[in-house]
Amino acid sequence: MSTAGNIEAKLAKNGQLIDLYINDVLKISYPEPLYKAARHLLDAGGKRLRPSFVLESSVLVGGEPRRTIPLAAAVELLHNFTLIHDDIMDNDDLRRSVPTVHRLFGVPIAIASGDLLFAKVYEALSDWVRQNNPTSGKMAFLLDCLNSAAISICEGQVLDISFESSMEIKESDYYRMIEGKTAALFKASTEIGGAAGGADARETAALGQYGLSAGMAFQLFDDYLGATADEKVLGKPVGSDLREGKMTLIVVHALDHASSQEREKLVRALGNQHLSRTDITEIGELYISLGSLSYTLKRADEYVQKAKQCLKEFPDCEAKQNLLELVDFFVTRKY
Amino acid sequence: MSTAGNIEAKLAKNGQLIDLYINDVLKISYPEPLYKAARHLLDAGGKRLRPSFVLESSVLVGGEPRRTIPLAAAVELLHNFTLIHDDIMDNDDLRRSVPTVHRLFGVPIAIASGDLLFAKVYEALSDWVRQNNPTSGKMAFLLDCLNSAAISICEGQVLDISFESSMEIKESDYYRMIEGKTAALFKASTEIGGAAGGADARETAALGQYGLSAGMAFQLFDDYLGATADEKVLGKPVGSDLREGKMTLIVVHALDHASSQEREKLVRALGNQHLSRTDITEIGELYISLGSLSYTLKRADEYVQKAKQCLKEFPDCEAKQNLLELVDFFVTRKY
Repeated sequence: MSTAGNIEAKLAKNGQLIDLYINDVLKISYPEPLYKAARHLLDAGGKRLRPSFVLESSVLVGGEPRRTIPLAAAVELLHNFTLIHDDIMDNDDLRRSVPTVHRLFGVPIAIASGDLLFAKVYEALSDWVRQNNPTSGKMAFLLDCLNSAAISICEGQVLDISFESSMEIKESDYYRMIEGKTAALFKASTEIGGAAGGADARETAALGQYGLSAGMAFQLFDDYLGATADEKVLGKPVGSDLREGKMTLIVVHALDHASSQEREKLVRALGNQHLSRTDITEIGELYISLGSLSYTLKRADEYVQKAKQCLKEFPDCEAKQNLLELVDFFVTRKY
Repeated sequence: MSTAGNIEAKLAKNGQLIDLYINDVLKISYPEPLYKAARHLLDAGGKRLRPSFVLESSVLVGGEPRRTIPLAAAVELLHNFTLIHDDIMDNDDLRRSVPTVHRLFGVPIAIASGDLLFAKVYEALSDWVRQNNPTSGKMAFLLDCLNSAAISICEGQVLDISFESSMEIKESDYYRMIEGKTAALFKASTEIGGAAGGADARETAALGQYGLSAGMAFQLFDDYLGATADEKVLGKPVGSDLREGKMTLIVVHALDHASSQEREKLVRALGNQHLSRTDITEIGELYISLGSLSYTLKRADEYVQKAKQCLKEFPDCEAKQNLLELVDFFVTRKY
């Protein structure tokens, strides 16, 4: 396997192509605060993982990456729209090491700027349609990919919020929630890339399954980072997930395996805004002693293997190698 | 001219067709609170004016109304999505005589339910594409109509909010704001109906101009109702616009024509949450004495005439008669 550096360079290169397009489709216009708010998180960084899924999937089946850029940008716009709205719903202050949109521009403009990005998703799709003259069938398929992903994200986000007040979440509930909140958009990205690149129905389905499993692995590892990484890596304070009472697989596993005393301690910590550094460290030690962190990494790795299996039937090529490395990167990244 | 009863019966009949489709595309699903929130305002009423614009415009150019239903539903879904988010931004408690979505379900679910409706807009479009196999050009045009309207609404809403804190709004600023907030979606509705029904570019443009002017008349009369109608008609408390400091043409005109003493009184009242009934009545009397209400009605009527002019080149038929009556209804309605 090649080094992580390779795939990070590839991500950066793809990201530049996408950002050029996004800069064009999202020029600062009137009223300025609306457009500045919409650009805020996009300008603050991000790895542009989903656009790379679109581009590499497209190339894998013989598509031209240049022709797929508007669609790759569309999934990034969709992702950023959901970040803005999720941060309001979760009352988060920081993301990508900068203040969240609603903290900087207020809730009303933040809501409107998310809506603006959502509309720009379909503007990018319209651009692609004008450039590529697809059949109405392909058109409807691409629309459905974007719509289903957006709907899944809404459903997953509402589940995520509702799980915060419950200590009775089963592992299956958790998977359902992250499939909606996170994996659905990775699935849409690979399906869109495949369909745009000329994949047949079987190839598109395989790519979709790859994206879905990769997305599950991504979220599982994200939860792991949330419990173990430092502030600089997270772009937000250590222990945020814990303080918000976020239901992660780590928590589900820990609650399931804790003694009644340990369980009580964890229940008291979840959603407690006033946790100290020491409290957070103690809970981290509890996770380790219960095997909850290693269990989460194990499940993440299973999804990585599952994702890779989905690419088995595709001929070896650079794009396939990139997709294989991307999913490895998902569970080894430091940020 | 025929009686208002005719057009109201037509609206009700079109509305039933649309609601059947919306009920199907927006079935209560999991998680239930998300879907119940998304349905809340749709179930509470509404005149379904925009879908009737789509259907009648389509019929005017020879389209089959039955085939246009998904597009007519799409604009109603778009409208309702913006209502949910606008009510959060404006911190409104009541709409259509029921509590607003965020009052009933909380802000997080309200945001997500608006986003869900927005995704359903494009799901309805995808339905229509599958049923009608349009060319990619028509497809892109319809996408652009929906996207531009959504973007204009975001822009208009942000202007509306920003105008609340300013007493220096010019009449031209006001028109720009309501063109975005309200008229753009009426324009999109008639353009979409025209394009779906088979209109050529010139006919589509004329229909779009009709929709735009009709939408301006609608909003001007809405402002008039907001200053003069009672609670039962408004579906929200009397004086809401005044208490929120909403910038209407009535206010712009009054500020422009008031003596310095009257101006001071009005400035004190605007945005004052604690206005009494007497205060509101006094401001109403000021509007009358300054001619601000009649000026607003006059401008609304000018837009009505402008809208009707746009239909001049279309042959006389029932759909044309309906569109003419619709715009009359806009400025004579009691609710």
